[in-house]
Amino acid sequence: MNSIVEQLDPIFKPKSIAVLGASDRQGKWGYLMVDRPLKTGYSGAIYPVNPNKDEILGLRAYRSILDIPDQVDLAVIAAPAPSTPQLMQECVKKGIKGAILISGGFAEAGNKGKALEDEIVKIAKGTGLRFVGPNCMGIWSAAGQLNLCFQQAPKPGAIAFVSQSGTFGGYLSEIANARGYGLAKFISIGNQADLTASDYLEYLAEDKETRVIVFYMEGFKDGRRFFELAREIIKRKPIVIYKGGNSGAGARAMLSHTASLAGSDNTFEGMCRQAGLIRAEEALHSFEMAEALVSQPLPQGKRVAVMGSGGQGVVTTDACASLGLEVPEFDEETVTGLKSILPPHAPPPRNPVDFAGSYRTTLDETSVTEKLLSLNYIDGVITNVPISPMVWGLKPISTDTDKALSDAITAAIQSAELFASLPKKYNKPIITLRFRRADDDPITKTIKEAGIPVYDTPEQCARAMYALVKYAEARRAVE
Amino acid sequence: MNSIVEQLDPIFKPKSIAVLGASDRQGKWGYLMVDRPLKTGYSGAIYPVNPNKDEILGLRAYRSILDIPDQVDLAVIAAPAPSTPQLMQECVKKGIKGAILISGGFAEAGNKGKALEDEIVKIAKGTGLRFVGPNCMGIWSAAGQLNLCFQQAPKPGAIAFVSQSGTFGGYLSEIANARGYGLAKFISIGNQADLTASDYLEYLAEDKETRVIVFYMEGFKDGRRFFELAREIIKRKPIVIYKGGNSGAGARAMLSHTASLAGSDNTFEGMCRQAGLIRAEEALHSFEMAEALVSQPLPQGKRVAVMGSGGQGVVTTDACASLGLEVPEFDEETVTGLKSILPPHAPPPRNPVDFAGSYRTTLDETSVTEKLLSLNYIDGVITNVPISPMVWGLKPISTDTDKALSDAITAAIQSAELFASLPKKYNKPIITLRFRRADDDPITKTIKEAGIPVYDTPEQCARAMYALVKYAEARRAVE
Repeated sequence: MNSIVEQLDPIFKPKSIAVLGASDRQGKWGYLMVDRPLKTGYSGAIYPVNPNKDEILGLRAYRSILDIPDQVDLAVIAAPAPSTPQLMQECVKKGIKGAILISGGFAEAGNKGKALEDEIVKIAKGTGLRFVGPNCMGIWSAAGQLNLCFQQAPKPGAIAFVSQSGTFGGYLSEIANARGYGLAKFISIGNQADLTASDYLEYLAEDKETRVIVFYMEGFKDGRRFFELAREIIKRKPIVIYKGGNSGAGARAMLSHTASLAGSDNTFEGMCRQAGLIRAEEALHSFEMAEALVSQPLPQGKRVAVMGSGGQGVVTTDACASLGLEVPEFDEETVTGLKSILPPHAPPPRNPVDFAGSYRTTLDETSVTEKLLSLNYIDGVITNVPISPMVWGLKPISTDTDKALSDAITAAIQSAELFASLPKKYNKPIITLRFRRADDDPITKTIKEAGIPVYDTPEQCARAMYALVKYAEARRAVE
Repeated sequence: MNSIVEQLDPIFKPKSIAVLGASDRQGKWGYLMVDRPLKTGYSGAIYPVNPNKDEILGLRAYRSILDIPDQVDLAVIAAPAPSTPQLMQECVKKGIKGAILISGGFAEAGNKGKALEDEIVKIAKGTGLRFVGPNCMGIWSAAGQLNLCFQQAPKPGAIAFVSQSGTFGGYLSEIANARGYGLAKFISIGNQADLTASDYLEYLAEDKETRVIVFYMEGFKDGRRFFELAREIIKRKPIVIYKGGNSGAGARAMLSHTASLAGSDNTFEGMCRQAGLIRAEEALHSFEMAEALVSQPLPQGKRVAVMGSGGQGVVTTDACASLGLEVPEFDEETVTGLKSILPPHAPPPRNPVDFAGSYRTTLDETSVTEKLLSLNYIDGVITNVPISPMVWGLKPISTDTDKALSDAITAAIQSAELFASLPKKYNKPIITLRFRRADDDPITKTIKEAGIPVYDTPEQCARAMYALVKYAEARRAVE
């Protein structure tokens, strides 16, 4: 049997796609599946298939997949459930290796649908044809700019997101994107009639674009295999998981939605811990956590130095403590050293470091950060996006009408570059709070491009650090 | 003694302002305090005061506040701490009724600063001059478009935000704004040398623009008065509170920051419960909760109907359950009624209602919502922003090149208007999930303008409903 990479590459890196049930009616899945890849600039061939059309969206249409003269890697089936068995048989005949079955009306829809699902599984079995779905919302693969899902193409990135819920998964990937987290893959796994969460996990472990794997799951078809695989894979890549259906009513809903049985939350928690999965408390937290795991070095322990102005330090420290992270007191020498850098109006240095609203010079925050990273009892730092006090509060900092202002910006950018180089130098993570809204300010841009994660709230910062600490602990436990 | 309104109106609704320590150097507080109100269109007179300038930012400057020929309501003092006593004496002499003391270097800075603070308190006492600060980041008052704080003017709204932390409070008000929550007031209370959290609370209870009061607090100067006042005020207005310094290390930080003693979290929790305050778990949650409290009717109980596609319903239900809200099963008749509206591919109706990705017609979501609100065992509904399935997934919905599309949009907007009228009709709240990114889509706009709160995540929706339920319970307890 082919390796998982050979089996799934035709789905995620196809050289050509046939869309069965292709349509020229806007809003129809058969339309979207032709239009989306065209729009994102997918470079392979797209063959619309529709028994009644000669052309769809400017592309030549075929009556049947068997009429396509060239080789086809991937078949996207956007036709009603009852016609699926015949289409699948034609796919097998054509030698197709990958398919995505969008339509519902299968196992989730009762006994008749279940019989239909069993039939298509039987048709594909042993033929080398593997398939996603049915009853799914498609996939996104950054590798080939391949958008075959309901939502607009996500921003490419290093997070692979596997979702048991289609619509909600698509929505989550949209908000994740709006918050700046890029996706390497999005996979709406649907009913998992053939390919299961475990198969995708195995594939993504090998996927070069994917650095962190995020799951939204409700229940497992092959839980044992999933957790056994996970335990191996976390040696190379972190896995973050959010599980729906933890409450009684939530589990009831899930039963109709994905026909998953909840099982006890304690059991699930235990399995996650044993396999070294990082569990997210809210769905969107998965992405916040993943973003830090994409780029930051792993901490050796859970001792965090916090920098923040006033309440920011207080709240960040509270959030760290509530997640079991430590914010240890500094030694005498460090206190003295910090005192010489912090502004005179700042209170006596301690952890969290209160810089009282502003540093004296552009370089000071970077200097304090470096001092803290160099301490052998500090494993990581949570601080602000470094903004020069000379830039802060002046005109919108993109203007350069004023020489002093433009000099201040240049200095701030240089300082930001130095700041962004620190995680590598000390092999310890830095997590930052935005502390101003603008995404396009040159300092935020500089450090984001250098891979420093930037968040909106102190609690997000603490969760990001927590994820790094948890993953580091899990790695140490299995290695 | 004057009423609290008479005492504080000169600060929040001044007809004229003097800025002591006014400066023409960008980035200086003395510059900002002249520039900000000019920019926001404050309509009163602004008198810059600086011993060495004749003009600042195009306005005539005065050597001393005593040289200003006209009456001045509010003095903003942006001068170094040591010069403050003399400036305050001049303010008293001038008959000023309100002042905002920006600079630090007072009680928070040690014994010498404490002596200085005692001195200014003594100067103002009994003269009718009340003041904000010192050591604060100013105020925003939507009433007169009066921006006297560090950050850009917030979007006007119905939430008053009182913050013990200046920089962090300002930052929070910025993110709150970025997320669409408008502010009636922002008050950075600083050292509370004169006016305390309790005074602002008393004032805001009377303030017409303020419908919900949000506090970021670390500790109280007069906790007993605060909670006694709160217990009365919640009969008219909800109060949401986030407290910093709950962890050991957080409390340590707080001690240097606002010289507040933490006290036990259990005691605080008990006081909040007794006074009927709604406590937020994360700083930003306060605003999410407040937004629902601004506009929605209060639920009679805690029984929620949830509508959502697949995982959305599961996650929303989980989140409700974890906050102690109930998601009860429907009766037979309701199930039958829902079945006739839901699309044929949806699973059998239950609570949460899974509409399986799309409704058949534009009106269906509104019909289902109305049916649920009409049930005597349902106290509120969490659902999506109603988006017509005919609009969804088509071209960006603002285009109108296509007749069918523009008809669909018109129908969707009409349906959204009907939807938005339901809370008033049934006197029960509706909370919505955005379910698409665009803030400017006409349906989201329609319902937001009608006061329906719109959130990004299922967990935010559940927290918003929780806040309504908690406030309703608190009101019933004190009435």
